[in-house]
Amino acid sequence: MMIHPVQLFDVESSTFTYILVADDEQSAVIIDPVERHWERDLAHLERLGLRLAYVLETHAHADHVTSAGKLRQLTGALAAAPAGCGIAPAELQLNDGDLIRFGADDTITVLHTPGHTAGSVSYVWRGNVFTGDTLLIDGCGRTDFQSGSADALYDSVVGKLFTLPEATRVWPGHDYKGQSVSTIGWEKRHNARLARRSKEDFVVLMAALNLPRPRLIDIAVPANQNLGLPHGA
Amino acid sequence: MMIHPVQLFDVESSTFTYILVADDEQSAVIIDPVERHWERDLAHLERLGLRLAYVLETHAHADHVTSAGKLRQLTGALAAAPAGCGIAPAELQLNDGDLIRFGADDTITVLHTPGHTAGSVSYVWRGNVFTGDTLLIDGCGRTDFQSGSADALYDSVVGKLFTLPEATRVWPGHDYKGQSVSTIGWEKRHNARLARRSKEDFVVLMAALNLPRPRLIDIAVPANQNLGLPHGA
Repeated sequence: MMIHPVQLFDVESSTFTYILVADDEQSAVIIDPVERHWERDLAHLERLGLRLAYVLETHAHADHVTSAGKLRQLTGALAAAPAGCGIAPAELQLNDGDLIRFGADDTITVLHTPGHTAGSVSYVWRGNVFTGDTLLIDGCGRTDFQSGSADALYDSVVGKLFTLPEATRVWPGHDYKGQSVSTIGWEKRHNARLARRSKEDFVVLMAALNLPRPRLIDIAVPANQNLGLPHGA
Repeated sequence: MMIHPVQLFDVESSTFTYILVADDEQSAVIIDPVERHWERDLAHLERLGLRLAYVLETHAHADHVTSAGKLRQLTGALAAAPAGCGIAPAELQLNDGDLIRFGADDTITVLHTPGHTAGSVSYVWRGNVFTGDTLLIDGCGRTDFQSGSADALYDSVVGKLFTLPEATRVWPGHDYKGQSVSTIGWEKRHNARLARRSKEDFVVLMAALNLPRPRLIDIAVPANQNLGLPHGA
């Protein structure tokens, strides 16, 4: 049985938010919620009669502001964030191999997958992996700012994510082409940046991308390190 | 266990396309695919290693062109459409209560839900209902053209869809507010047009909407009655 999350989209930043429903059909977690959609996401939980157990962040985003703090305030959920991302107010500071339990019988496994940022993690749940900006469909996150490292990203993807079962569904943090989901097997064989490429080649490729600085980075990163709440809140 | 479809979105027409994966994790059906996304949707099936068994239409759309014919040609899937929609080339002409089987152990039940158009159907699968333009989240499809009838739509929603189990997830054919999914129970209690409203009130409400004629209707409906293929193809 293929268990899917609900995938929600923010058109402005092309960001995916995910809602994972526990086997008991009563509890849920949300991954990478976006500030401007907090009402949409709360209404979604209400319509489906779900109690929010955790708000999870894959990293401190540079391109949009999270609603994690707001959702925590409004629902009583706990916030969980990677230990290496400087997101101090999160109750759970996550490290590689940590388990997050929710509902009657659901477990999320934390994988530390640095590269896009030094603290970035991926989350594994029931044959799905939520890769944030580490592994995208047919691509990967940039590695040129915010403690990024092409060398580390290569090891995270090729040495860690690509060792998951091939049928594992890959749910990325962004997509810019309307794509929704991929699999580890497909990305191992076809990913334009990472399939069958040496680490040396990958590092050269990433260094040559010459991307513009994210427009919102100076606002978004400090805000996200405070779960999207005003500092002092 | 809450089984979800994959929900894909067309930004131009705010149309949802759904991919339903069978329990065997090898077969799939697609509901209401959009012409301009046929490559995206084929790539999706390929990445997940899925064989397309059927292309399903909920009705002959007036606001976008289907890729049903193209997907049928390229995959060998069969096309299935409501008998009352004039979609002549579809192999399966569906009537109320028909069952569509796919994969090793999956069944879709057809519900005839006229009102948006006289032929419109909804599809029920594993605790989910795909309502096309009959029932939307907190709304409903228009009933003022293409053999629409507010009277019939009311009976379809209140007399038929609202008798499904309350936890049934409602996956609409469109959403204009970023919403993704609702439930029968929530719509029964809160739907702005249909919850706790008499048929007489509803008919008056719908007659007063005074909506503009869909821009693409004269192109889209004839095209969709030929599965989106050029006539003569």
